[in-house]
Amino acid sequence: MNKEYEVVIIGGGPAGLSAGLYTSRARLSSLLIERGLVGGQIVNAELVENYPGFPEGISGLELTQLMHQQATKYGLETLLAETTGIELKEGQKVVKTTEANFIAKAVIIAGGSERAKLGIPGEKEFTGKGVSYCATCDAAFFKGEPIAVVGGGDAAITEARHLTRFASKVIVIHRRHQLRTSRILQEKAFAEPKIEFLWNTIVEEIKGEEVVQQLSLRNVITGEKFTLDVAGIFMSIGFKPNTAYLKGVLPLDAAGYITTNEKMGTEIPGIFAAGDIRYNSAQQAVTAAGDGVTAAIYAEIFIR
Amino acid sequence: MNKEYEVVIIGGGPAGLSAGLYTSRARLSSLLIERGLVGGQIVNAELVENYPGFPEGISGLELTQLMHQQATKYGLETLLAETTGIELKEGQKVVKTTEANFIAKAVIIAGGSERAKLGIPGEKEFTGKGVSYCATCDAAFFKGEPIAVVGGGDAAITEARHLTRFASKVIVIHRRHQLRTSRILQEKAFAEPKIEFLWNTIVEEIKGEEVVQQLSLRNVITGEKFTLDVAGIFMSIGFKPNTAYLKGVLPLDAAGYITTNEKMGTEIPGIFAAGDIRYNSAQQAVTAAGDGVTAAIYAEIFIR
Repeated sequence: MNKEYEVVIIGGGPAGLSAGLYTSRARLSSLLIERGLVGGQIVNAELVENYPGFPEGISGLELTQLMHQQATKYGLETLLAETTGIELKEGQKVVKTTEANFIAKAVIIAGGSERAKLGIPGEKEFTGKGVSYCATCDAAFFKGEPIAVVGGGDAAITEARHLTRFASKVIVIHRRHQLRTSRILQEKAFAEPKIEFLWNTIVEEIKGEEVVQQLSLRNVITGEKFTLDVAGIFMSIGFKPNTAYLKGVLPLDAAGYITTNEKMGTEIPGIFAAGDIRYNSAQQAVTAAGDGVTAAIYAEIFIR
Repeated sequence: MNKEYEVVIIGGGPAGLSAGLYTSRARLSSLLIERGLVGGQIVNAELVENYPGFPEGISGLELTQLMHQQATKYGLETLLAETTGIELKEGQKVVKTTEANFIAKAVIIAGGSERAKLGIPGEKEFTGKGVSYCATCDAAFFKGEPIAVVGGGDAAITEARHLTRFASKVIVIHRRHQLRTSRILQEKAFAEPKIEFLWNTIVEEIKGEEVVQQLSLRNVITGEKFTLDVAGIFMSIGFKPNTAYLKGVLPLDAAGYITTNEKMGTEIPGIFAAGDIRYNSAQQAVTAAGDGVTAAIYAEIFIR
């Protein structure tokens, strides 16, 4: 027999944990399903300086452990398993996982998104040591230093412009010969004296001792190889929302994101989405937490 | 001469403080204007149990002091003054206060809303000691005890139903003879065995020793006076957003709230709104904080 919960939450990052805190405090029987580490991708952040309430900063691991402890205190149950599908059956929602299936009155999807990686030598080793996937989070660590941004879309250029307030120089490395971004953003980027461009260029390796010091680059047209000394490298080459198992269940946009209304509701009554998995999410821990709480409040209204 | 800032934030609760944290970290010169105590209305909460990251709970005062300290660390300036107006002049935004006027490139309005009060004896004295204005926040303090809810609208009935999970009995006290709420919500409330109604009734006084113990009531039709023993009383008689000075500047709804899009933008480019002052806000500290961060991120994009 499938076990029943009033709310099943998929994903154990700040969005899911905050949703679970509120649904549990509302005395709705609640199960959170996480496939990896409770905490989500923020557990990789050594120092989170921008979650409001922690002036000295806090590690992503500790922050999400506190959130988990808090939600668990009010009754949230946690299961480590991979969610493989959601089935709608006679008004019921069945959440299928690698461990068991669960029947829920409401489902909150908070599985986050993964930052696309280059997959080059040095990238993994130096993550958090000069390799970053979030300019808003980590820009302040690079005051007065030269840094690189990899990518050529809106996000990359927005991040490059953000970084000019901190870095001595921002070198945008793009594998094509032009940007994929709006004209106005391009013009602003070209007018910015601190931003330089390396066109038709890819990063082949990230090098350093303890922290990032140098990039090995290659021009894809001429084949020329060269190096660039930087203190940091920001990857801005896209995201992949964790929604593969939702195809055919919920409408997803071309990139795989879920569109919600302001109540975090999806097109299916009783299924909510929160955090980075949503189209147009601000992708910050506290906005994800806020999303989760909003979803929880409307899930309660839906159920009662 | 008017002093210039890149961002002026009006209101020093969780929304404004979180916005200021992000704009300051983005190295935008930022001024936060607060008319009363930095922290906003949550400073009255003795124990906030539902802000994600604090498993043991934290007082509203301490939480917002931490947020203020954090934002100040990155350069946020704070001014204690009352905002009296916003003027749009030749593409500039002039924020007028009782202390001075300021020119801003972007303005984030985060002035919150005030919970309507009954204004009866005992209400102020017992606030936080049995008198509450937020069922989501305080319901868990009343496990197994009889409690009253004052009001007859959607919010009152939603809160009454939420409270049935905790209280032994929920008595809804309404000054009219019927609810002002949707039919479906009414039917659900009437079907709930734990909810009782006192129609045509007003609360005249709240009594107790240290904490709330008894209400003095009066039937407005018969004039009959009587008492009711309760452990708590939840006021759900509406909110008043702090937007009086914005009439003629921004479109406000009938109740005075500001409507925003998902980027927290208002109808005027460069003016954003965040937190409880928004139409349809979830009115929780962490959703307000999330709103503030979203507004800050889009204010930066607007400015750059």
